Amino acid sequence: MSIVKDPKSLLEQAVGGNRAALAKLISAIERDGPQTTQVIKTIFGTASTAYLVGITGAPGAGKSTLTDKLIRCYRLRGLEVGVIAVDPSSPYSGGAILGDRIRMGDHASDHGVYIRSMATRGHLGGLSTSVPLAARALAAAGFQDVLIETVGVGQVEVEVAGAADTTVVVINPGWGDSIQANKAGLMEIADLFVINKADREGVRATKRDIEAMLDLAPKGDWRPRVLETVASLDRGTDEVFEAILDHRKFLETSGKLKEIRANRDEEQTMRHLVELAKVDLATFSRGFRATSLDPLSKAEEVFAAWLESKSNQTGNS
Amino acid sequence: MSIVKDPKSLLEQAVGGNRAALAKLISAIERDGPQTTQVIKTIFGTASTAYLVGITGAPGAGKSTLTDKLIRCYRLRGLEVGVIAVDPSSPYSGGAILGDRIRMGDHASDHGVYIRSMATRGHLGGLSTSVPLAARALAAAGFQDVLIETVGVGQVEVEVAGAADTTVVVINPGWGDSIQANKAGLMEIADLFVINKADREGVRATKRDIEAMLDLAPKGDWRPRVLETVASLDRGTDEVFEAILDHRKFLETSGKLKEIRANRDEEQTMRHLVELAKVDLATFSRGFRATSLDPLSKAEEVFAAWLESKSNQTGNS
Repeated sequence: MSIVKDPKSLLEQAVGGNRAALAKLISAIERDGPQTTQVIKTIFGTASTAYLVGITGAPGAGKSTLTDKLIRCYRLRGLEVGVIAVDPSSPYSGGAILGDRIRMGDHASDHGVYIRSMATRGHLGGLSTSVPLAARALAAAGFQDVLIETVGVGQVEVEVAGAADTTVVVINPGWGDSIQANKAGLMEIADLFVINKADREGVRATKRDIEAMLDLAPKGDWRPRVLETVASLDRGTDEVFEAILDHRKFLETSGKLKEIRANRDEEQTMRHLVELAKVDLATFSRGFRATSLDPLSKAEEVFAAWLESKSNQTGNS
Repeated sequence: MSIVKDPKSLLEQAVGGNRAALAKLISAIERDGPQTTQVIKTIFGTASTAYLVGITGAPGAGKSTLTDKLIRCYRLRGLEVGVIAVDPSSPYSGGAILGDRIRMGDHASDHGVYIRSMATRGHLGGLSTSVPLAARALAAAGFQDVLIETVGVGQVEVEVAGAADTTVVVINPGWGDSIQANKAGLMEIADLFVINKADREGVRATKRDIEAMLDLAPKGDWRPRVLETVASLDRGTDEVFEAILDHRKFLETSGKLKEIRANRDEEQTMRHLVELAKVDLATFSRGFRATSLDPLSKAEEVFAAWLESKSNQTGNS
């Protein structure tokens, strides 16, 4: 594993179009090693932000195929596009389950497309931290549009997709029992529903079902649209692209985009703050023998002792 | 919503067999209000622990039916049993999706069975904190065996089931694409696999599939067993019960039970510690204007200022 010695020059290379340099930057973010903070600060120094489109849904719903067609929409308009594919890691292989990635091979030789898989590695902050930072790296390297594809199964993956500017939820006709438990979560984050494989039976019932759930949802300023596609035949995918642009326009003109981005930065700050405290607390509590028996009283005792030790430390300096 | 004024007398009533008092205790834990800590400390004061059996699997796998039959196994042996059913909450209804709960109506009039639904309410710590505490409350009230049923979809639900002493993963013949993404996670926590609906096609292939994955898994001292049931016909459920007892015996004689329980308490302490720090940091950072631009540097700045403020506070007192 190579070590990033000079993030600044690496970033300069990435900005200049060097894809290997870009890959190294993202690896540094993913790794969360000692140089990571420096890499991140360097990236934030460029002040570039990409427009993030999250694409989520159950395995087999057709997310990758839709993503593939959306990439084409961006390319036809001369736009460069970055793709971050989030795969849950396997504790046995230690790596990402790539699977569908292969299908995107079409774009492999196109310099205007950058596709990157990211896996949960259980490091500090995890995907909720590393994916937005990787998107920042892509933005810094000139990609003003980034697609984030996640499997909408776990809460973390749904959260990552939901942290995009526009979130597309891909389902199939008869979305039934298998995602029942997660329906509410998906309803909450969707700016756009895509019923993919719409050449199958049950499209109308599924559409009715979603619209009924949307009727019950708290009214916001944007009512999620429900579109139909057969992504494998490139049917309806242009409309999805247009709907994404519409939602983006809505966010921009209403001032909401600025707001959600500020909130996102604030959340990231808070997460990092908690991590800083956590690392420090873990180290401290290892060396501390609490006298209390129950975990909560013990925690209070450790916390008080920790604060006390801080005060002595700083007080004496 | 009633307020718990005197946790000690409430606990005494619960210990005495008062189910309404027990319900109030668990509600206090679930609510995570100002009296919660007091309630928890009171419960920990009793030093009772139940043996926890987690039952997880995809929606429709037959978890509730299996749980129902297992309850009967405990009752036939004269054992009292508590059941905690974890349902993901719907942001629209604000409550738990009860669904299968109704089927357990058989045991409703049996005083030796206590069934309780718990929902994610997004409060501090969430289910990972509240479920083990509710199990403690059940133990204090005399239930020495507690079943925790969770939908194995989200990471949190899987974690909750995995925090049991024995974890049973319920699947069906041909467990396929729908839980593909989560397979690895389930493999990691399972002490026992139950292929339910084993009167359907594909049982042997599914069994082979699991055994093959287990062959690849890091070898531990306990190799998870793979059993077959038709829970709706009460076929094979006694064997599941026996296998749970076997695993328990293994944990007890190897000293592992003591170890995992100590670890669990430690994790709970750490979680509460982080929550204490989080609440304090959130309050502090609201009133603090950082000068840095990127979230990470900002976090470092806030953290340093927070420590500084602590030192002044304590130093002057």
